[in-house]
Amino acid sequence: MNDFTEKFQKLEIEVPSWGFGRGGTRFETYKTDTDPKTVEEKLELAGIFNQLTGQGKKVALHFPWDVSTKEDLLKLKECLAKNKLKAGAINSNMFSVRPGTVLNSELRFGSLTSPVEKLRKASVAHNIDCIKIMRYLGSKTLVIWLPDGANSPGQMSFYDQAERLEKSLKEIYAKLKKDELLLLEYKLFEPGFYSTAIQDWGRALNLVNKLGKNAKVLVDLGHHAQGVNIEQIVALLIREQKLGGFHFNDKKYADDDLATGSIDPAQLYRIFCALCEAEHRGLIQIKDISFMIDQSHCIKNPAEELVESLENIELAYAKALLVGYSELKKHQLACDISMADRLLRSAFLEDVRPLIYKVRKEKYLAGDPLSELRKRKK
Amino acid sequence: MNDFTEKFQKLEIEVPSWGFGRGGTRFETYKTDTDPKTVEEKLELAGIFNQLTGQGKKVALHFPWDVSTKEDLLKLKECLAKNKLKAGAINSNMFSVRPGTVLNSELRFGSLTSPVEKLRKASVAHNIDCIKIMRYLGSKTLVIWLPDGANSPGQMSFYDQAERLEKSLKEIYAKLKKDELLLLEYKLFEPGFYSTAIQDWGRALNLVNKLGKNAKVLVDLGHHAQGVNIEQIVALLIREQKLGGFHFNDKKYADDDLATGSIDPAQLYRIFCALCEAEHRGLIQIKDISFMIDQSHCIKNPAEELVESLENIELAYAKALLVGYSELKKHQLACDISMADRLLRSAFLEDVRPLIYKVRKEKYLAGDPLSELRKRKK
Amino acid sequence: MNDFTEKFQKLEIEVPSWGFGRGGTRFETYKTDTDPKTVEEKLELAGIFNQLTGQGKKVALHFPWDVSTKEDLLKLKECLAKNKLKAGAINSNMFSVRPGTVLNSELRFGSLTSPVEKLRKASVAHNIDCIKIMRYLGSKTLVIWLPDGANSPGQMSFYDQAERLEKSLKEIYAKLKKDELLLLEYKLFEPGFYSTAIQDWGRALNLVNKLGKNAKVLVDLGHHAQGVNIEQIVALLIREQKLGGFHFNDKKYADDDLATGSIDPAQLYRIFCALCEAEHRGLIQIKDISFMIDQSHCIKNPAEELVESLENIELAYAKALLVGYSELKKHQLACDISMADRLLRSAFLEDVRPLIYKVRKEKYLAGDPLSELRKRKK
Amino acid sequence: MNDFTEKFQKLEIEVPSWGFGRGGTRFETYKTDTDPKTVEEKLELAGIFNQLTGQGKKVALHFPWDVSTKEDLLKLKECLAKNKLKAGAINSNMFSVRPGTVLNSELRFGSLTSPVEKLRKASVAHNIDCIKIMRYLGSKTLVIWLPDGANSPGQMSFYDQAERLEKSLKEIYAKLKKDELLLLEYKLFEPGFYSTAIQDWGRALNLVNKLGKNAKVLVDLGHHAQGVNIEQIVALLIREQKLGGFHFNDKKYADDDLATGSIDPAQLYRIFCALCEAEHRGLIQIKDISFMIDQSHCIKNPAEELVESLENIELAYAKALLVGYSELKKHQLACDISMADRLLRSAFLEDVRPLIYKVRKEKYLAGDPLSELRKRKK
Repeated sequence: MNDFTEKFQKLEIEVPSWGFGRGGTRFETYKTDTDPKTVEEKLELAGIFNQLTGQGKKVALHFPWDVSTKEDLLKLKECLAKNKLKAGAINSNMFSVRPGTVLNSELRFGSLTSPVEKLRKASVAHNIDCIKIMRYLGSKTLVIWLPDGANSPGQMSFYDQAERLEKSLKEIYAKLKKDELLLLEYKLFEPGFYSTAIQDWGRALNLVNKLGKNAKVLVDLGHHAQGVNIEQIVALLIREQKLGGFHFNDKKYADDDLATGSIDPAQLYRIFCALCEAEHRGLIQIKDISFMIDQSHCIKNPAEELVESLENIELAYAKALLVGYSELKKHQLACDISMADRLLRSAFLEDVRPLIYKVRKEKYLAGDPLSELRKRKK
Repeated sequence: MNDFTEKFQKLEIEVPSWGFGRGGTRFETYKTDTDPKTVEEKLELAGIFNQLTGQGKKVALHFPWDVSTKEDLLKLKECLAKNKLKAGAINSNMFSVRPGTVLNSELRFGSLTSPVEKLRKASVAHNIDCIKIMRYLGSKTLVIWLPDGANSPGQMSFYDQAERLEKSLKEIYAKLKKDELLLLEYKLFEPGFYSTAIQDWGRALNLVNKLGKNAKVLVDLGHHAQGVNIEQIVALLIREQKLGGFHFNDKKYADDDLATGSIDPAQLYRIFCALCEAEHRGLIQIKDISFMIDQSHCIKNPAEELVESLENIELAYAKALLVGYSELKKHQLACDISMADRLLRSAFLEDVRPLIYKVRKEKYLAGDPLSELRKRKK
Repeated sequence: MNDFTEKFQKLEIEVPSWGFGRGGTRFETYKTDTDPKTVEEKLELAGIFNQLTGQGKKVALHFPWDVSTKEDLLKLKECLAKNKLKAGAINSNMFSVRPGTVLNSELRFGSLTSPVEKLRKASVAHNIDCIKIMRYLGSKTLVIWLPDGANSPGQMSFYDQAERLEKSLKEIYAKLKKDELLLLEYKLFEPGFYSTAIQDWGRALNLVNKLGKNAKVLVDLGHHAQGVNIEQIVALLIREQKLGGFHFNDKKYADDDLATGSIDPAQLYRIFCALCEAEHRGLIQIKDISFMIDQSHCIKNPAEELVESLENIELAYAKALLVGYSELKKHQLACDISMADRLLRSAFLEDVRPLIYKVRKEKYLAGDPLSELRKRKK
Repeated sequence: MNDFTEKFQKLEIEVPSWGFGRGGTRFETYKTDTDPKTVEEKLELAGIFNQLTGQGKKVALHFPWDVSTKEDLLKLKECLAKNKLKAGAINSNMFSVRPGTVLNSELRFGSLTSPVEKLRKASVAHNIDCIKIMRYLGSKTLVIWLPDGANSPGQMSFYDQAERLEKSLKEIYAKLKKDELLLLEYKLFEPGFYSTAIQDWGRALNLVNKLGKNAKVLVDLGHHAQGVNIEQIVALLIREQKLGGFHFNDKKYADDDLATGSIDPAQLYRIFCALCEAEHRGLIQIKDISFMIDQSHCIKNPAEELVESLENIELAYAKALLVGYSELKKHQLACDISMADRLLRSAFLEDVRPLIYKVRKEKYLAGDPLSELRKRKK
């Protein structure tokens, strides 16, 4: 096994259970007859995905979306095993009502930051439930994305919001064991349109620093304002030892949740360069970072769009592996920017599909997963 | 009646039937027990709104959201009359399935620009149905907002999309009588996240010019990219005699559909200055423009948020009426920008609430519609 | 003296020496005959500004822009005294060459983060010089804004950049005495167009935390991506005891440096609400924060535009003082968002000009500084 | 000569004289000793550029930047001939003073839309001078980019601005002969920061339609708001037969003028796909469009950065030529979006450098122009 193959195989990509289903917009969700309806159907598809691509061994799960009763959880565990899959990150859902807890209508005032104490408590309790689910399913990672925010300047005091948030997060974090991770997401806007409780990486870093060693930041590519340099955020989080993982998707304007790399493949490549450069410098091990796809498939076939995203991630990583980071640094120290840029551009221009194809074939995977997937579904 | 009162009363503001109901985001819609459930309940609220504020005599309607059968349409007409209301603009809905026409799942490929001919035809037919509804209810205005676009670069050819769009719109426009108007909306993104079929005022102007005199552009305040100067678009459309009307709302980032003037009241004021300056110059009559509120109330009580928006519109208009446009022009011609800006700022800083209160009292309206509305609802 | 007057007088606003001169764009700077040419002429104008408005007692200074020799520094000190002014914040300038140090052309690779060691050292040395100037002029505040960044992905490693930046800043910070402050600016883009070394408040907070108690963050209103909620950043920095001060200006798209409050006065008001609410809660004393105007006057008369900005700041503050923050909190805790928003909106709608006029008259200031300034200049 | 080679050679790319010089930001311009100082030195470099790359035969010129006297114009013509170059598009400059015309300081109020009549006339006259220069140098294309706009809402009436602009442009257009073109640029912001006179493609299209057949729109890639779909604008202008040409550069946030394709090569590729698809459908001939590089080189060596941009344009075009547009349409008509996207992605992933290298070698050009350029400069 050569060096490229060895490094290439370090990347493990999780797929989300919800990614096999049809997403929608606030206007409409256009379900088709062939879309999987149950979590069992989704996991069956996930199993095929894993067989064909070698990726997606771990499936990120969403509660109570995926299951909401103990019996169903048992079935879910069996279903994962049946499809030779493992539980990936456990995502708590604080914007949907959980049966027997709070009224749906009350949730509109927020979850971990709600002005209503019983709602904050219910949301904390749901996250603690998710930690139990996590252990039951053999996962080590809890992902928290918060729907909290405000739609108008008067709705909530930033001071109260911040205080409640820190208190709630500490209560959840306290339940984690030494080898368990809390990954915290940030997001500029939506569903709060005037403000969100954790609006950017700066606030997220500030929060995980307050929590402790096992709390890290999760970077979702769609959660930034236009013009923000995401690869720089990745590098700065790495330096602070606080990069926990990624939610991969792509966007043109807002949190569009399009197929990863479908709009801006060069940005995806630069992010992987920041990762590979960090590994080259001994700052991280790529295998310690969580790589997860998180998209909303509204039009194309969801499973096919996951294949597309996976391929784009593999392409970006493979290209980033070709860069000579020592040589790059030499050019940078010599202020020879033309040559430094050329080196980065050159790797991006390489057609790495044959390299990836070779790795696949060595692992007895499908050479063309998309076509193979179509055959299987018939 | 003094000059201010006379001008102030020229402004007629439509409210949307859907604005009395609870909106949601793509994540969740949080209905409450007190939210109106049927169109009858919405119109009853609209009647109260009109009694208290003197505005909202005309109610903008949405089909098939509001009704989808002939019997229901008859009832809707009676219900409008019962609440002393009139039908405002008729909004066709091309993103939801109409019973007995096309499959919901097929709609995800678009409506007037769909690659599938039968779907284009069904969408054209729905708009022609809406024209009939328009006439039946005594309205003169059809509003077209198109959900068409694409989520990926390969989904659709811009050339085919544009050609189909022009053909479909011409078929609809051909059905209009001389005194009927087609108002065409544009929107930068959503639900198409890579592109939308009518992405900006430039394309909308281009299209209404191809259609004819009775087609005009509708400006929705939330449908622009960040940094776009909306008051300039208003002025340019006025010069081309193609400003049809407004959908009022506010935003911080995307099409957030927040209460009008709740985030950026100065922008709203500048838009009304562009309108008043145009009337001052004899370019338009304010009464010929359609002023419509279009918001999505996710958290606050919807009827209350409509009152808030209405008040913000009235405030912006009242302030814009105080500006001396001849004096402004003098400063501008003298390149005395400090004085020109000061004049505009000065009117904005006036507290016009007493002026508006006086007009209300003369018309026997509620001095404080929000408090009055709360009493009525009990 | 009533409560409003007492609180209103707590706000001290600094004006920048460079704000009395004519700014330009990258295309052209249009100097007029009446623009002050020397720092003496600027300070004379600053003296008049202070007499008329009661504000601008402290003048922010920029080195080596304002003076570059010891002799000139002596004159500057005398000139401040002659005009009854004091030195405000001292701003180091790391993008212009200082005579006798480095070549201008080398500066294009950065200052505190340059790949070239001697350039980093020269930039550190310049800041240490500025600390000496600070003491000589009786100021306690050093403001650092960094021009460093990159125009292409290959230009610089984020890892090297971050490491050099932290090292350089620590060297500067080490020279500060116990009662001296270092205020650190952040900026999304420009003059680096691919990236900047301190791109947002998150990185700035991260850095001042590494430096120590006397390092705080400076918020320049024009340095954020579109859609970013600045009042939330203000509140979060306050909670971390790291809000050092402001550079006031306004923008429509980028760092446009327009007159403060001329485009979005409601945002300015919300920022002052965040400050007043914090003081109400005992989190800060408004008088401990640095309030500085930082604009670039390209078209209007610069001194007049400073008066406009000052008035807009005073208006925003006066309105924010009218808000009942205890009542606001009651509405928020009761989830009565309509009433909470109404309370905030109501204070914004007040015409506070008579209140401010009264305070001015009590202090024997000009009732209409702009007109008075015009008379003086003749 | 095969099909690819034939098509590839159709693309003719102009380079700008100013692109060989060092650009700057509003903060500073960092000239180096090796930067060309005179237009003669720039054209000498342009000649080398043309020899090495086969592109840049035509050099876009800027007046009065390049020359401002008749004698110098004569020399310029000789200098072009000496370096085996031709005059490309002639760019009028309305933001810099022309000796003997107007005062520099008056220009800050605008050019073709100035409130001052003599300034409007002087700007019209300068454009008519440029038409004469155009003929003298054998060019057929006048490019107009307008610095006009406003920095505050009171500065100018949109109605007056629009009227003056249309009048001024008509006076210039009237001087054109049948085979001469006026290309009109639009720009969202800068140097006007509150508004610009021709803010987007919609206004530009509206204006060239008022002018006539020989007026077309020029698309500068850096002149759009974030999130705007540029390839759609290209397609819509093509359908209206109003696409005149391009100014190529790249950006991350504003009009950053970075090397073309250095930040978002996929967008550049999609633009070329829109062009190639149009040619495939018989809507345009690529050779009739003006392709011009327009960048501002602040840090890297300018000539080297032009080579980088040229290569990125050639790569994007070569890849777009590989797409099977008939097959793409088949997938689109079948609503098989996965396959349509895959087809577009597949061509983008090809390494076309060998193809381009082969064409170069057949034309006896440098295989590696950047390295060759470095050798020559020594």
